Amino acid sequence: MTTRLADAPHPEPSSETAFSQNRLTRLSEKRSPTSTQDALKHDHAHLYLVTEGRVLLKHDEEVFDPLFSPSEVYDLAVGFDEAILLGFEADETPVLAAWSGADKDALPDYIKAIDIRSVYIQDLLPPDRLGALAQGAALVSWNRTHKFCARCGHPSDITDGGYKRVCPNCGAMHFPRTDPVVIMLAVTEDGERCLLGRGPQFPEHMYSCLAGFVEPGETIENAVRRETEEESGIVLGKVSYHASQPWPFPHTLMIGAHAVAKTTEIRIDDELEDCRWFTREDVRLMLAKEHPEGWWTPPSGAIASHLIQAWVEED
Amino acid sequence: MTTRLADAPHPEPSSETAFSQNRLTRLSEKRSPTSTQDALKHDHAHLYLVTEGRVLLKHDEEVFDPLFSPSEVYDLAVGFDEAILLGFEADETPVLAAWSGADKDALPDYIKAIDIRSVYIQDLLPPDRLGALAQGAALVSWNRTHKFCARCGHPSDITDGGYKRVCPNCGAMHFPRTDPVVIMLAVTEDGERCLLGRGPQFPEHMYSCLAGFVEPGETIENAVRRETEEESGIVLGKVSYHASQPWPFPHTLMIGAHAVAKTTEIRIDDELEDCRWFTREDVRLMLAKEHPEGWWTPPSGAIASHLIQAWVEED
Repeated sequence: MTTRLADAPHPEPSSETAFSQNRLTRLSEKRSPTSTQDALKHDHAHLYLVTEGRVLLKHDEEVFDPLFSPSEVYDLAVGFDEAILLGFEADETPVLAAWSGADKDALPDYIKAIDIRSVYIQDLLPPDRLGALAQGAALVSWNRTHKFCARCGHPSDITDGGYKRVCPNCGAMHFPRTDPVVIMLAVTEDGERCLLGRGPQFPEHMYSCLAGFVEPGETIENAVRRETEEESGIVLGKVSYHASQPWPFPHTLMIGAHAVAKTTEIRIDDELEDCRWFTREDVRLMLAKEHPEGWWTPPSGAIASHLIQAWVEED
Repeated sequence: MTTRLADAPHPEPSSETAFSQNRLTRLSEKRSPTSTQDALKHDHAHLYLVTEGRVLLKHDEEVFDPLFSPSEVYDLAVGFDEAILLGFEADETPVLAAWSGADKDALPDYIKAIDIRSVYIQDLLPPDRLGALAQGAALVSWNRTHKFCARCGHPSDITDGGYKRVCPNCGAMHFPRTDPVVIMLAVTEDGERCLLGRGPQFPEHMYSCLAGFVEPGETIENAVRRETEEESGIVLGKVSYHASQPWPFPHTLMIGAHAVAKTTEIRIDDELEDCRWFTREDVRLMLAKEHPEGWWTPPSGAIASHLIQAWVEED
């Protein structure tokens, strides 16, 4: 098997976001009903283990290792039956992901269950392992929440490495869902100010780009305009795609764009607690967490941070 | 209610694709459990009626009308219980969509059930009605194929105008799915040739851009590279987003990109029947259906056609 470059880091805005790099080759066209079992038999197969929003990490001082061999996890309540085949290392070693039912408060000393947001914020794993973590967390989560056939209600069976479920009752095939979400930085026509908002559930003083799910029947640009107008009252003109990011909370594709605002009068709806215009100087300070008002912006791995940074650096 | 511009046609590549324009305002933030029933009570409410891949059109000579009033559909087996609220016209008239169980071969003379592909290919409806048709077809289809809770198997209930289903047994909420699919035109580094392929199920002699579903844990660009490499063996470098299109077969978001090919040796997998490089002159003739080999490209409303055309016109 030749090494394939499919997910090699490529110099583009998307590859600078968290979870965007993945060293594994998926070989998606080779998946079969026995892919997972075959992979688990490989001498050097390894698994990521995920729980509710967390990943299990073996740690030694400050070094964190997400990869477990099947033989070392006997007391971690691993769901091998529904393990996911993520792909293959350059040396053809298979890497998988599975659920661990272990009590996160009763783990051996050398294992911690760390929430996935903290893993990326604190750089606990190299970038090219984060992509596989996102892939695994999304697929484990989708399989766990879709154990029944939506067409007829019968329990469904996992197959093809976790990338398909089939219903033995009605024959329906179900594929993992990836939810497209637009996230956008609107900028005034004079280029001087950008629009950021915060929801009631946000950490205190944090402002971010507006965002929302793409609905059926929309283009990306129309979703950007609709969500912005619904949440803030601002009417947008030109929308420009900037970058995308896999966001495993639980299985989203963030689609980031810049947009030109045609109006400036903000009218917020119930979703936002606040929404306002910020100058470049404001956001420069917010990115550095040095704004005198205590305002700040999402961590640097988040696509919102990249949208904001790209605009600040445009000057 | 002020007229809102959320889906107004905006001069960008996406708005030139079929299904991208929608004159309705969704008011998504106003949806509630009674949205559909309230809308149906409106004096001038109208519905799109869809069946398996088709839409019912009233026709008078060459003029086609997709909008039915609730009172004129008594013999069309309309599923009012699961009707979808699409949005509102500028005069606040609600527009909905619903399933019709009518036998397409036993319809009154003035009604035809036309497959949705033909509707856009033959321009049977104005562009700003096609977007609502895509929206309605996607939502009706999703609701029909997701009547059971995937978490526990119990029948689920439609709510919020068709944009949510809730399970009365376990409380799970289910939202319509929109599947992101990348579709890409790879071009050689010298800019002289583009890559097109055909699957066994394609109409004879038709070639199109390569495409595939975005998988969990991928950026758009990485999905473009992976799918291209898996299907054709071609390794891509830079990927540039061009346009997106809602594609109601059944509920997909097409994400179109151009890409630079770093290799030229094609190796096809099982999915493609053929895949080859075409010159600009080739595709100019194919777009006009004048190629001496009889090769042609998808209809002009399809995003593949737009990707190809944009490259041809770049010269």
